[in-house]
Amino acid sequence: MKTALLSVGTELLFGQITNTNTVFLSQQLNLLGFDVLYHYTVGDNAGRLAEVMERALQDCDLIITTGGLGPTEDDLTKETACQVLHDTLVMHEPSLEALHEIARKRGRAMTENNLKQAMMPTRAVVFDNDAGSAPGMALSEGEKTIICMPGPPREMKRMWERRVKPYLEARQNSVIYYKMLRFFGIGESSLETALLDLIDNQTDPTLATYAKEGECTVRVASKRTTLEEASAAVEEMITSVRERVGEYLYSENDESLAEVVGRKLIDRGITISSCESCTAGMFSAELAGVPGISAVFDRGIATYTWKAKMEELGVSLETLEKYSAESRQVCEEMVRGLFDKTGSRICVSVTGVAGPGGTADKPAGTIYIGCLFDGRLEIRELRTGRDNRNWNRHYAMLHMFDLVNQMLG
Amino acid sequence: MKTALLSVGTELLFGQITNTNTVFLSQQLNLLGFDVLYHYTVGDNAGRLAEVMERALQDCDLIITTGGLGPTEDDLTKETACQVLHDTLVMHEPSLEALHEIARKRGRAMTENNLKQAMMPTRAVVFDNDAGSAPGMALSEGEKTIICMPGPPREMKRMWERRVKPYLEARQNSVIYYKMLRFFGIGESSLETALLDLIDNQTDPTLATYAKEGECTVRVASKRTTLEEASAAVEEMITSVRERVGEYLYSENDESLAEVVGRKLIDRGITISSCESCTAGMFSAELAGVPGISAVFDRGIATYTWKAKMEELGVSLETLEKYSAESRQVCEEMVRGLFDKTGSRICVSVTGVAGPGGTADKPAGTIYIGCLFDGRLEIRELRTGRDNRNWNRHYAMLHMFDLVNQMLG
Repeated sequence: MKTALLSVGTELLFGQITNTNTVFLSQQLNLLGFDVLYHYTVGDNAGRLAEVMERALQDCDLIITTGGLGPTEDDLTKETACQVLHDTLVMHEPSLEALHEIARKRGRAMTENNLKQAMMPTRAVVFDNDAGSAPGMALSEGEKTIICMPGPPREMKRMWERRVKPYLEARQNSVIYYKMLRFFGIGESSLETALLDLIDNQTDPTLATYAKEGECTVRVASKRTTLEEASAAVEEMITSVRERVGEYLYSENDESLAEVVGRKLIDRGITISSCESCTAGMFSAELAGVPGISAVFDRGIATYTWKAKMEELGVSLETLEKYSAESRQVCEEMVRGLFDKTGSRICVSVTGVAGPGGTADKPAGTIYIGCLFDGRLEIRELRTGRDNRNWNRHYAMLHMFDLVNQMLG
Repeated sequence: MKTALLSVGTELLFGQITNTNTVFLSQQLNLLGFDVLYHYTVGDNAGRLAEVMERALQDCDLIITTGGLGPTEDDLTKETACQVLHDTLVMHEPSLEALHEIARKRGRAMTENNLKQAMMPTRAVVFDNDAGSAPGMALSEGEKTIICMPGPPREMKRMWERRVKPYLEARQNSVIYYKMLRFFGIGESSLETALLDLIDNQTDPTLATYAKEGECTVRVASKRTTLEEASAAVEEMITSVRERVGEYLYSENDESLAEVVGRKLIDRGITISSCESCTAGMFSAELAGVPGISAVFDRGIATYTWKAKMEELGVSLETLEKYSAESRQVCEEMVRGLFDKTGSRICVSVTGVAGPGGTADKPAGTIYIGCLFDGRLEIRELRTGRDNRNWNRHYAMLHMFDLVNQMLG
C-alpha cells in the first residue's frame, strides 16, 4: 500500500529536534510490506497541513501522522484529518474518562483545553495512549486512511506496538516475523558480499544490512499468513547466514556485545575485572550498564600514567622504558598484575595509541588487548589505520568485549 | 525567504539512516533568517522528484536538496532540478578536472559514470566539493532557486560552510553571528522562565533554548549588516543572560563539561584522579576523551564490590556495614583513600543507587559525589527521583564534572 509519513511540528522545521519517529515508522512499515513513498514535515499551520494532506492522499492510500495531538490551539492534526476526510468531531466518552483518570492521578484539574483531546471524528477507530494523554485514531474514507499518532517517541512507539501495528496487520491478512542478527569483526561490505546471493534472490524472507560504528546488523524478516510459517522461514534463512558468516555472529536478539558478555558472566557466575589505559574506563562503564552485573564485576582500573600502571598493576619500569606503555609486553603485565591483585577469573586489559598522532612504528590505532581466563592468556593486536581518537577508543572497547566473548565460547 | 528542504534517497524511506542533514540545515537556515516551511523526502524516482520540486516551488522561493548527486543512474537530483527550472546540462570543465584529479589520487580510472557528475546546467553557480567527488550547485529562474548538495553529512556540511552559506549570505546583505551558551544544574523550563522577557521581546538578537540529557543550551544570534555590530549585540545580550542565570553557565563556546574541566586542569597543571562505584568508569572515560589530558590525569578506579572499595581505597568494613556502600560516609572514605593513594591535587568519588529499584530510604537516584581539592572537601547529595539506571549514571557523571568545575572556580 502506498504510504506517506507526515510529521507535524514547528520545532522540527527549526531543527530543534531530530525526527526519529520517521526512521522508526519507515522501518516498521517496510517490514509490514507497506511502500513508504514520501516523508513530509510541516509546522503547526492549518492551511499548509490541510494542503499537504490533500496532496499526499492523491498519491497514497495511507497517511500516518505524528505530532499535533496536544491540548493547545496549535495542535491541529486530528481536526485537519477530520476535515480532509469529511467527518465531524464529537466527544469520545472513553477518551474523556481516560483523561479524567490521568488528571486525578496527577492531582490536577481538567482544563477546557484538555477536552479537545477527547474529541474524535464519528467514524474514527480510536487508539488509547498508554504512555500519555493524547489518544490516536484511524479515519477512513473509501480507500483512503489517515492514522494520527502522538509526537513524543515513547508514546508513539507504544501506541504503534499495541494498537496501530495490529490494526494494520489485521487489514493485511498476514503477519511479520523478524530477527536482528548482530555481527562484530566483519565490515558491512564484506558482510554484503558474503550474503550477496541471498540478498539478490530474496523475495521472502528478506535480508537488510545496517552498519553502525564498528558493528553490523542484519535484519531477517518474513511475511506470511501465520506466525509459524514466518518464524520457520526466518530460522531457515538464519541457518544459511550462519553457514557463511557464523563466526562473526554474536547475537540473534539485537543485543550489544556488552549485554551478551554480561549475561554469560552472570549466568555462569564468572567474576571479571578490567584495567584500561587508552579507553580509561569505557569498558568498565559499559559493562556496569548491564543490570545484575554487580554479582560478578569486581573492579575496573583506568591506569593512565606510568606511575598508575606500576602502582596499581605492578607493571615494571624496565618494561615501560624498553617497550613503551603502548606495547604487547605492557598489555600482558597489566592483565597479569590485575589477576594477582583481584583473583577475578577473567581479567582484561587494554593499552595503545588512541591518537591523534602516534609514531611511524606505532601509528594512531595501534592497540593491544589482553585477556586472562583461568590461566589462559590471549593478546590481540589491532591496527585500525585511523587517526581518530574517539573512534579508536570506541573500537578498542568493542574488541575487549569481543575477545572476552570469544574466550567465554 | 520561504524555503523547503528536499532530501533525496530511497534509503531514507526504508529508515536505514536518520536524516541529520535536515536538522543541521534547518538550524542553519533559521539562523540566517530563512523561513523553513517544509521538509520533503522522496526516493530515487524521477517522476516523484520532479513533482515534489514543482509543488515546492509553488509555495517557496528556495529549495535546498541533499542527496542524489552520485554517479549512478539512480542519482537524478541535478538532472531534475535542471529540467524543472528549464536549463540544459553541459560539461563543466573545472568539475571534470577535479574529478580527474580525485581519480588520479585514488589510482583509479575515470568511468563513463563519473563524467555525469561534472555535467552542470548552463546557468548554474557550481559549488566545489572539498570532501568528496560530487560538486553541488545553485540554479535560479526568476525569483526561484534550487540549491543541490551531496547527501553524505560530512560533504554536505563542508560545502555548506565554505560555499552555500556565503552564497546565501551574499544574497542577503547581512551577516549572522551567534554563540552557544551551555548550562548545567537548571532545567529547560526554569531557564526559559528566567529568560522569558528576553525571549518574548526578541527581535534581534534572538534566543533559542535546546535541552538534552541533563543539560541546556541557549543560542544567542544576531543578524546585522556587519560582523562587528552582530557580535556586539550578541555580547550585550549575553551580559543580560549572565545577570539572570550566570551561576549555571559553564561555557560560551558550546563545550561539554568534560572539555571545560579538562582544559582548566591542563592549563593550570592540576593533577586529578577519580574513583567510581555506580558510574564505574564513565567519568574517567569521558575525561580521557580530552586531548592532552594525559599531562594531568593519573588514574580512575571503578570499585564495584565492597572488596574493591576496601582494597583499593581503604574504605572500612565497619562503615560499609553501618551505612551501606551507597552513603555519604563511604563516598567520603573513598575520596580520602584515593588521595592517600595517588596524591592527586583533585580527587573525585561517586557512589549511589543507580537503580532499577532501591529502598524507601534510598530510592534509585540517591547518589553521593565527593571532591577533595587541596584539602578542601565537598560532598554533594543527589536525589534525582528517577528509576532509570542509565539516566541516573549519566546524570551523576555530569554532576561529578560540575562539582570539580565549581571547586576549580
